[in-house]
Amino acid sequence: MNPFSAQRDQTIAALGETALLRHIRSWLGSATPPPPFGMGDDVSVLPPETFAPARGRVLITVDGVSWGQHFDAGASPQQAGRKLVNRNLSDIAAMGGVPGPAVCALQAGPDLRLDWLEGFTRGMAEACLGAGVALAGGDLAGADSGSFSSFLTLTGTAERPVPRTGSQPGDWIGVTGPLGGSILGRHLDFAPRLREGQWLAGCTEVVAMMDLSDGLGKDLPTFLTEETCALLDPAKIPLSPACRELAGRTGKNELAHALNDGEDHKLLFTLRIADGDGRGEEALTAFQNAYRKAIGTECRMIGRIAATSQPHEAGRLLQKGTHKPLGGSGFEHFINQR
Amino acid sequence: MNPFSAQRDQTIAALGETALLRHIRSWLGSATPPPPFGMGDDVSVLPPETFAPARGRVLITVDGVSWGQHFDAGASPQQAGRKLVNRNLSDIAAMGGVPGPAVCALQAGPDLRLDWLEGFTRGMAEACLGAGVALAGGDLAGADSGSFSSFLTLTGTAERPVPRTGSQPGDWIGVTGPLGGSILGRHLDFAPRLREGQWLAGCTEVVAMMDLSDGLGKDLPTFLTEETCALLDPAKIPLSPACRELAGRTGKNELAHALNDGEDHKLLFTLRIADGDGRGEEALTAFQNAYRKAIGTECRMIGRIAATSQPHEAGRLLQKGTHKPLGGSGFEHFINQR
Repeated sequence: MNPFSAQRDQTIAALGETALLRHIRSWLGSATPPPPFGMGDDVSVLPPETFAPARGRVLITVDGVSWGQHFDAGASPQQAGRKLVNRNLSDIAAMGGVPGPAVCALQAGPDLRLDWLEGFTRGMAEACLGAGVALAGGDLAGADSGSFSSFLTLTGTAERPVPRTGSQPGDWIGVTGPLGGSILGRHLDFAPRLREGQWLAGCTEVVAMMDLSDGLGKDLPTFLTEETCALLDPAKIPLSPACRELAGRTGKNELAHALNDGEDHKLLFTLRIADGDGRGEEALTAFQNAYRKAIGTECRMIGRIAATSQPHEAGRLLQKGTHKPLGGSGFEHFINQR
Repeated sequence: MNPFSAQRDQTIAALGETALLRHIRSWLGSATPPPPFGMGDDVSVLPPETFAPARGRVLITVDGVSWGQHFDAGASPQQAGRKLVNRNLSDIAAMGGVPGPAVCALQAGPDLRLDWLEGFTRGMAEACLGAGVALAGGDLAGADSGSFSSFLTLTGTAERPVPRTGSQPGDWIGVTGPLGGSILGRHLDFAPRLREGQWLAGCTEVVAMMDLSDGLGKDLPTFLTEETCALLDPAKIPLSPACRELAGRTGKNELAHALNDGEDHKLLFTLRIADGDGRGEEALTAFQNAYRKAIGTECRMIGRIAATSQPHEAGRLLQKGTHKPLGGSGFEHFINQR
C-alpha cells in the first residue's frame, strides 16, 4: 500500500499534531500504559519494578524502518509496524534478554495517509502486546512530503547478557534455523527468537550470540579476531525453502544466498564444549537434544572457530578442509542501499 | 554548512558502514563508554548502578533533529549535534531529572559529507560530556540522498518526577526566563535547564512542570483542564532581547512573539502556595528569593490558574481582569512545517 496521498483530507496534515496524538493513543489501545506511565508528558516515567536489580542487567537498543529502505508499497502498513518492533525484539533476543518498555520516534511528511498510519500503529501495537512490551511514549516530527521513518528504542533485562565477543578456537558455531531468501517475504514477517535467546543464554556453554540481520557472511566475522577464522561445512548450513526458490530465480547458487542475504533474524552463537575424554561429540549431541526438547526445533552446528596465523585467513569464513574462502560481504549500509 | 556533497570521495558512501562506525567511535571519544558498555553489540548493556532504586524513578524520552526541519545550512554541524542532545536534556530537566545513558539513531543519505558528520558527532559528544551522558550505542541507517535525521533516546532518573498534570485554581504560573525570538539564534544554542528543574522538583510547592518547546500559547494549555483557565498579566511575561528585536523586524507585537515562538526551552511550572493568614504574597516572595539564591537568575510569576464554568474560557490563556483571550496556537507540527 502507498503510504502517501495528494488528497489533503486523507492525510495527517488534515488533523495536526494534537488530534493526531489522540488518534495514535486510541490505535495503540492497551499497548500504551495509562497515565502517568504512558504518552502525554515531556518524558515517560517507568514503573518502579521495571529494572529491579533481581531482573539482571539493563539492555537498550534502537532500530528503525523507513519507507523505501526497509519496506515498500508491497508491504501492508501492519507488516511495516510489526517489522519495526520485531527488528528490535530480535536484538534483545540476541542478548538472551527479556524485553521491557519502549519509546517510538515517528517522522512523516504531511502527505502521510491517516489510514496507513493507523495500520502501522496497530501493527506495532500487536507486536508489542505479543511480546509484553509497553509503548511508554515517543515523539512525532514533521518531514518532507513522501517520506516516512520510525525508530523504536527498546529496553530489556538479562541475567546473563551474551556478547558478540569471547569466542575461541575450538568453539562450535550454531544457528537456530534455516537461512537465505528472506526478501521473498520473511523479511516482513519474521518471528524474533526471544525464547531461543533466553534458553541459550541460560546455557553456560554458549559464549557469544547475535542475530543474523546483515547475512552470515558479514555477521559471523564479528565473532572473529585477528587470530581466528571460521571453518564451515557448507553442507551443514541449513537452507530455507525461500533460499532455494530465490536461487532458482536469480541463477546464483543457494549457498551464496544463505551466506549473503540479510534479515534472516535467526540467532548465531558459539558453543564451548570440552573435548576431554573424547566425549565432545556426545556432549554436543546432548546439547542439541536439550535444545530440541525445550524449543521444539533444531539448532544446527555449521562449523567451528579455528586459530590461524595467515593474515589472509584471519576474520574470514573458510571451507572446512580446503580453506577456500566462503561468503561475500553481506549487506553494507550506505553502499548497498536497501 | 551544507551537509551533502556530490563528490563521492567526500561522503559517507566512500567508507561504508563498518569503517564509518570506527570513525564515529573515535569522534565520540570519551562520550562513548568502553566495551562492554559502549557501541558494537546487538544492544547496549548499561552499568548495574545506572538505575539503582535509590536514584528514584526511571525516565525515558526521545527527540530528534532533521535537516530542513530543525536546522538548515545556517547551522554549523556542531550546533546541530548539540541541539539534538540539548532538546532531550531539556525534557529530562522538565521532570526535575538527572540525565542517564543515551542511544542514538542516525539516518542519512549516501551523499552526507564525512566532515559534516564529524562535526555533528563532535557537537553531540560535547553536549553529552557536559551533562554526564554516556552515549551507549545506536543505529546507522541509509536514506535518500539529501536527507539527514537523527533521534536520541535519553534516559534519566528523578526522585520526584514532576508531571504536567495536577494544577488547580489558585496555583501560580512561573517561568524560569525570558521568552520569544528564539529563531534569531537561541533555538540552536540554548542551555537545557537541568539545575533549575532539579531545584524546582525539590520544592514540594511545585505541582506541574514542562519545558517550553512549542510556545507558551500552545504549551501552557497542557496544564489546564475543562474547568480551568490561565489568567495572565501580560506586563509580567518576561521578554527576551531577541523577542524585541524580532518584533521590530516582523512588525508583530512583542507579546505575540513571546506567546507563540517555539523552542524557548525555559521551564514553565505551577506553584501552590497557601493563602492562609493572608501571607501568600510573602511566601511567594520567599520562594522567588530562594530560587534566585540557588540558581542565580530570576523566576517570574506571570499569572495564576483559575476556575471557569465558561466553555469558551476553559483550557485558554486569558488576560487578567478583562478575560480577553491571549496567545495563539503555538507551533503545530505537520501543519506549520518548521
